Amino acid sequence: MADQQRAGGVAPVHFVGAGPGDPELLTLRALNSIRQAEVVLHDQLVSDEILALVPASAMRVPVGKAGFGSSVSQDRINDLIVLHAISGARVVRLKGGDPLVFARLDEETEALDAAGIEWIVVPGITAAMAAAASLGRSLTRRGRNAGLRLISARTAEGLAEHDWGRLATGEDVAAVYMGKRSARFVQGRLMIHGANPAMPVSVVENASRPDERVIETVLARLPEDLELADVTGPAVILLGLAGQTAAVALEAAE
Amino acid sequence: MADQQRAGGVAPVHFVGAGPGDPELLTLRALNSIRQAEVVLHDQLVSDEILALVPASAMRVPVGKAGFGSSVSQDRINDLIVLHAISGARVVRLKGGDPLVFARLDEETEALDAAGIEWIVVPGITAAMAAAASLGRSLTRRGRNAGLRLISARTAEGLAEHDWGRLATGEDVAAVYMGKRSARFVQGRLMIHGANPAMPVSVVENASRPDERVIETVLARLPEDLELADVTGPAVILLGLAGQTAAVALEAAE
Repeated sequence: MADQQRAGGVAPVHFVGAGPGDPELLTLRALNSIRQAEVVLHDQLVSDEILALVPASAMRVPVGKAGFGSSVSQDRINDLIVLHAISGARVVRLKGGDPLVFARLDEETEALDAAGIEWIVVPGITAAMAAAASLGRSLTRRGRNAGLRLISARTAEGLAEHDWGRLATGEDVAAVYMGKRSARFVQGRLMIHGANPAMPVSVVENASRPDERVIETVLARLPEDLELADVTGPAVILLGLAGQTAAVALEAAE
Repeated sequence: MADQQRAGGVAPVHFVGAGPGDPELLTLRALNSIRQAEVVLHDQLVSDEILALVPASAMRVPVGKAGFGSSVSQDRINDLIVLHAISGARVVRLKGGDPLVFARLDEETEALDAAGIEWIVVPGITAAMAAAASLGRSLTRRGRNAGLRLISARTAEGLAEHDWGRLATGEDVAAVYMGKRSARFVQGRLMIHGANPAMPVSVVENASRPDERVIETVLARLPEDLELADVTGPAVILLGLAGQTAAVALEAAE
């Protein structure tokens, strides 16, 4: 099988979504890819429980993206993927969550395209869905919202612009990725655009992991409450998912 | 284990995402839930390959939502879930894609809450991600978009309103669910709001299934090209994911 795959010389690289952290939220295909890997290049965000599924004989290459510790440049990551693939190894590029969402997939696939190396994408459960599953609240709801937004408040160029006026109305449900670092900026943008300070906000830290926490707050207190709770893990901010009335939320926060 | 779960009388109902159709895109937890089920209430959209994983001893209850054939009212679905749970069976409510996205989850969980029955959500790969994985195009991209929208153009009340003006700019990446039925409406709304008729549009029908098809077109030809291609399966319309320039797309379409 491996020899067949390599008849053309080089096996396709698998870009695999590791999901939010709980190994049981891997897809069956992701698990198969990991089990057959000879080289696994992985984000720091990928959980230890998932890395434990990598065969002992396979090479593990951590390539940063944790916001702390050693970080590897995107160019270097691209080069490493290409070099390992050219060496003839079955390469898995393992990304936290879903490789299609806020994962800089294109930069890596374009490097492979330039080198004439094939690749496939194995999707994963993205953080917004894992967070909502833990909350037990649907991301869409009849009569409330017919749309869902996944947004990042930061880009490589700095803070991201969105149509904050629309988001401030609370009509859309939005999941803000990289929530801890974005909390003050998101709060500021929404308040400037007229959002209700009592808008309920749910934050899920370490969704699906044993140390998962849910912080229920309101917009006016969002950054402070994340500080108070000492949120340090990956966190998703959920807007517009009111599971409580604003009045109750304010009372609870005071 | 089962007896422990039922110590309180009733096992928690599992709302399980079946994903887009390929059984390998089930999560490990979803597979476990299905294998331990005694009653499975499933959408018509759940693929035969996935239903084949239900134990032979388990009861299978199709509950419609296919847009054709026998359809079961939402009230009746809610009642069936509650009744089977109360009977003491391990119940799985199996939904196509992700139970958290356009799946009317809240209506069913509220019925369980009212009956005092516990439940959990096992997320699944939603159609937008499966479609993008098949296309091999990231849903977000540095310098292009820091946000992603999942939208439904139809609701139980009729056609859904969105901020079409913003969508018409093509700056956001958006996945429109239930794409076949929505194509003409979406096209009309976007054109009225000034969208470029040459805006590239990708449609993925039956994402991840053996009969998957990709239709690359432009906004001006969207409904006609779906008619020509005789799209009849579940289809996702992807906007803003230009994998080709508008000029090339128009040429190809003419």
